[in-house]
Amino acid sequence: MNTLEIIKTRRSTRKFKPNAIESEDLNQIIEAGRYAPSGGNSQTSHFIVIQNKEVLDQLAQLVCQEFAKMEIVEGMYKSMASSIYQSKNGNYRFHYNAPCLIVMFNQESYSNNIADVSCCLENMMIMASAKDLGSVWINQLKWLNENPVIVDYLSQFGVEKGEKVYGALALGYPDTEDGKPNRTPLPRTGNKVTFVS
Amino acid sequence: MNTLEIIKTRRSTRKFKPNAIESEDLNQIIEAGRYAPSGGNSQTSHFIVIQNKEVLDQLAQLVCQEFAKMEIVEGMYKSMASSIYQSKNGNYRFHYNAPCLIVMFNQESYSNNIADVSCCLENMMIMASAKDLGSVWINQLKWLNENPVIVDYLSQFGVEKGEKVYGALALGYPDTEDGKPNRTPLPRTGNKVTFVS
Repeated sequence: MNTLEIIKTRRSTRKFKPNAIESEDLNQIIEAGRYAPSGGNSQTSHFIVIQNKEVLDQLAQLVCQEFAKMEIVEGMYKSMASSIYQSKNGNYRFHYNAPCLIVMFNQESYSNNIADVSCCLENMMIMASAKDLGSVWINQLKWLNENPVIVDYLSQFGVEKGEKVYGALALGYPDTEDGKPNRTPLPRTGNKVTFVS
Repeated sequence: MNTLEIIKTRRSTRKFKPNAIESEDLNQIIEAGRYAPSGGNSQTSHFIVIQNKEVLDQLAQLVCQEFAKMEIVEGMYKSMASSIYQSKNGNYRFHYNAPCLIVMFNQESYSNNIADVSCCLENMMIMASAKDLGSVWINQLKWLNENPVIVDYLSQFGVEKGEKVYGALALGYPDTEDGKPNRTPLPRTGNKVTFVS
């Protein structure tokens, strides 16, 4: 596939096989992420890569427990409301049981933190697409940046001073019949383009 | 080149030939941008594509004029301070005289505005790299989101209700001897990776 096909056929994957990712695949995906541009070439994104099943389970349980304490309020971002709703029902797995979660940190004081992390995540999604892996953007840990239970749990994994979560990626082999990602491009009816003549 | 090479050899280009971009190249780059993921598949990014030289010149002059009125303060983001400094000297061209500027708008009220726009921009940068075009991320119009002169000038180009600028891309053929982008990857000493065992 050429680059445009790889980009256009990247879809979010929300069902993963439990298999660990081959190290060569994982290393290339992370390498693609690290080569994203950064404001003033600051390179302050921090990739924390979790593949330990016990850690992922504990984290998912804590996320469910903490969302369950929150209340859905009017005007709340739909996906956040859905996380709270599912957590109150006690069965929420924010990472879709992916075998690998890459949590993206950056400096809270840095004005391009979200932009830089987003470029790293997009590079990793494209690279995953190129390698027939599935991935999906995860915002839940970002929404819990002020939650002391989650912040405390994550702090054991080498989070550095001043860092907060600005996104995450669930990654793994898609749980489809042929093990390959669904490559039917979703139409783009939005993301409008205006040409200035 | 494979996807990893295209990603790793993408460098920011800051010197462009004046030539307009071939429409097939431009359309594919924009298409790649539109196929970026968005929060809840909302597709609320808006690409305003400016290739009219007169418009780009007017916009660059206004940006220079407005930055020149601002003051450099301690702790200011380095690149913003540099924009003000150069503008006070009267010779600031925020878009590096690229023949094409793609200004990325999204809804101010939408919590994933910066993230979504960043993914669109990264896709376009990768696609530009795949096509031997040069590109560079531009933040200056985002920094002027509250500046009435710039907001008023941009409003004639189809900006919709509630939209603000969250990034932009200068795009064109690199002004190098062979007309191709510099492909020496810049080392990544930052963008640290921590594996959780």
